[in-house]
Amino acid sequence: MSLETLSGQSEKAYALLKEDADKILKLIEVQMTNLTMPQCPLYEEVLDTQMFGLSREIDFAVRLNLVSEENGKALLDRLEKQLTQLHEATLKQK
Amino acid sequence: MSLETLSGQSEKAYALLKEDADKILKLIEVQMTNLTMPQCPLYEEVLDTQMFGLSREIDFAVRLNLVSEENGKALLDRLEKQLTQLHEATLKQK
Repeated sequence: MSLETLSGQSEKAYALLKEDADKILKLIEVQMTNLTMPQCPLYEEVLDTQMFGLSREIDFAVRLNLVSEENGKALLDRLEKQLTQLHEATLKQK
Repeated sequence: MSLETLSGQSEKAYALLKEDADKILKLIEVQMTNLTMPQCPLYEEVLDTQMFGLSREIDFAVRLNLVSEENGKALLDRLEKQLTQLHEATLKQK
């Protein structure tokens, strides 16, 4: 595969992964805003399942050499940090 | 992206997805063999989560134009059929 086409596919793959990470953040934000209990087990389950799905996507992209392991890990870490911040902000408001 | 390189990446993507589907089947087979109760909620949960992970991978591959929607769906359908057969065979033995 030429460098040029690989980099095109890589960019697309990375953009899709970022989009999916943002969707998870939005989903959790909506749940946080509308649920009275962020300690609800259902919330934890939804989050765990979504994070697992995203980590499978990232792993798949890494195995296809579309995304580096480092960038994939950074993407997951950033989402986790954003979720923690969101969680803390919501707890303070209630 | 040239047709040739796209087809190479497609083959690799499809092979990885098939590999992951087989891993789920093996995992469930091991669970079936070692658990006395395939009706166990934990078993259902593991299966649901694994299937969700695979469906996210397939969806990602489809969005990258590496796998056709039809082939992606066929892959999931086949795994579901195999799991049903495995489930039925195990229930008969017990």
